[in-house]
Amino acid sequence: MQAAFFAGNQTFHTEPCVPVAPSAGEVQIRVAYCGICGTDLHLFHGAMAHRLTLPHVMGHEMSGTIEAVGAGVHGWKPGDRVTVRPLDSCGACPACAIGHSHICHNLKFIGIDRPGALQGLWTVPAHTLHRLPDSLALREAAMVEPIAVACHDVRISEVAPDEFAAVIGGGPIGILIALVAQARGARVLLAEVNEFRIKLALELGIDAVNPREVDFPALVSERTMGAGADVTFEVSGSQAGAEMMTKLPRTRGRIVVVAIYGEPPKVDLFRFFWRELKLAGARVYEPIDFEHAIELAAAGTLPLDRLITNVLPLNRLADGMHQMERGGDCMKILVDVQA
Amino acid sequence: MQAAFFAGNQTFHTEPCVPVAPSAGEVQIRVAYCGICGTDLHLFHGAMAHRLTLPHVMGHEMSGTIEAVGAGVHGWKPGDRVTVRPLDSCGACPACAIGHSHICHNLKFIGIDRPGALQGLWTVPAHTLHRLPDSLALREAAMVEPIAVACHDVRISEVAPDEFAAVIGGGPIGILIALVAQARGARVLLAEVNEFRIKLALELGIDAVNPREVDFPALVSERTMGAGADVTFEVSGSQAGAEMMTKLPRTRGRIVVVAIYGEPPKVDLFRFFWRELKLAGARVYEPIDFEHAIELAAAGTLPLDRLITNVLPLNRLADGMHQMERGGDCMKILVDVQA
Repeated sequence: MQAAFFAGNQTFHTEPCVPVAPSAGEVQIRVAYCGICGTDLHLFHGAMAHRLTLPHVMGHEMSGTIEAVGAGVHGWKPGDRVTVRPLDSCGACPACAIGHSHICHNLKFIGIDRPGALQGLWTVPAHTLHRLPDSLALREAAMVEPIAVACHDVRISEVAPDEFAAVIGGGPIGILIALVAQARGARVLLAEVNEFRIKLALELGIDAVNPREVDFPALVSERTMGAGADVTFEVSGSQAGAEMMTKLPRTRGRIVVVAIYGEPPKVDLFRFFWRELKLAGARVYEPIDFEHAIELAAAGTLPLDRLITNVLPLNRLADGMHQMERGGDCMKILVDVQA
Repeated sequence: MQAAFFAGNQTFHTEPCVPVAPSAGEVQIRVAYCGICGTDLHLFHGAMAHRLTLPHVMGHEMSGTIEAVGAGVHGWKPGDRVTVRPLDSCGACPACAIGHSHICHNLKFIGIDRPGALQGLWTVPAHTLHRLPDSLALREAAMVEPIAVACHDVRISEVAPDEFAAVIGGGPIGILIALVAQARGARVLLAEVNEFRIKLALELGIDAVNPREVDFPALVSERTMGAGADVTFEVSGSQAGAEMMTKLPRTRGRIVVVAIYGEPPKVDLFRFFWRELKLAGARVYEPIDFEHAIELAAAGTLPLDRLITNVLPLNRLADGMHQMERGGDCMKILVDVQA
């Protein structure tokens, strides 16, 4: 069994996995599939280097089966099919104290601050586990984590049936937000500049246009009879997206900022005043979002097979990173960790 | 009776008032006092010139008594003591359609888009009237409009008793927000750079510091045992304020943007993601905010007498503008329109 060790400088070494026996409260998982996240690409490019101990094993969008169970772990046994909610919170900070442990001030993100899932055998705290139903294939189950992000974002938006949702950015998270919002009964319009992604979105039943070719705010206004969007999701992380997001909402409309901004963009605060707009940031997920994601994935509601555009063996992880860099014709790239 | 006619170019001409007989649905008011608002100062400086018909009469923070009543006006009679909620909405746009007529897409602000209260006799639609109790002097009643702004902002913040509220900016609106939030049971800390205003705030029982001398985010953190502010009001309209506002809130804390920004500032959207912050814009007021403001003013809860630092006759309106420009040692300047 192998692991992909990130050595910095855009380099992985695929070497034999070094299994860690599960301590008390931990489980060891035989990882099946692991998706490559935009965050992994950032790590690959050198971001958050201060949080990594090299060589580092990335990966946090995974599926697998339990291999071994540590002392004091109840309710789990070898062979159980699982995914992991990769958050380890302190339980003691002011955020944990008011029940928001996913925004813990001392949060350890497993796959960044701790070794991740791009290894054959992976040991994690048992409290991070979510059970996968038999009806959900392990390949599709590697999508549960990004679906949970989308479920969290849509939940924070409070979008209601028949409300109009604009989504700025049609990468994997933007597409999943569109699909989850549609599953909730919302009318959705997606703005995306990559033609491959627009075509895929349209094929999946998401109305999508290129805001470089279409006046997107005018189209949102037209679709809402001049009112504006009830909900706007900013998933692009770009200055253009930050500008777009305040042009779309209706009076008292809600904006959810999903994207992670490297630099503070200029934001039209006047528009917040003028239309009494609301904005909420959304970060990762809570347990309920994972449960909802597993439910949606298992029900076959989401076209996960179409979103998985590539599956690579572990020793081609760097190729996957470069494919994502180019953008072009990929959506979600999975790694078959056992291959 | 006189009126102050704004001729552009920072010039007023005080000339005899030209009374307008009230049409159906209107009333004519004998104006007593009228406060000078920051918005008036902006008009004085040439802002929003496209909305003015020169010569223009400004003023929208007023008190007075009804002089005459037009046809079809019920419930009002000459001699009634009133203030005016200076908003005229269209009743037909998408914002009006969902009950937010104060954010009407075609809103006419009386005092900008229509003649204002800096004239001896002023004619307005009867639907803008709010009754003043006898216990509230007309001088203090001219403060009802800015108090209503503060009531609206505090209501949108949903601040609860014992919650911690940080207020960035201690001009009349910032001070009133602090006072209204305290009246609601919140703990308040105000950031202001003008020493006169800091001193006045402290004398009025508002804890206030100069963020150029004190590490304001560190102080907020200390006062909240590391959690951060439950609510942050951004009332400064400055880039420094826009930067400060994201440093203060606790996890899932609320920011209310009260200030009117001329240019989009840089905003740390990463922080919204990181702590799942919420932001809401707040614009003017709704009828309930006026009722609440009148109640607070009449109950003597607010030290209005201390906030009114100058009362000038109508022919000294330009002096009042220049005093406000200098900032220094004034808070709210009233015009005695009958003087």
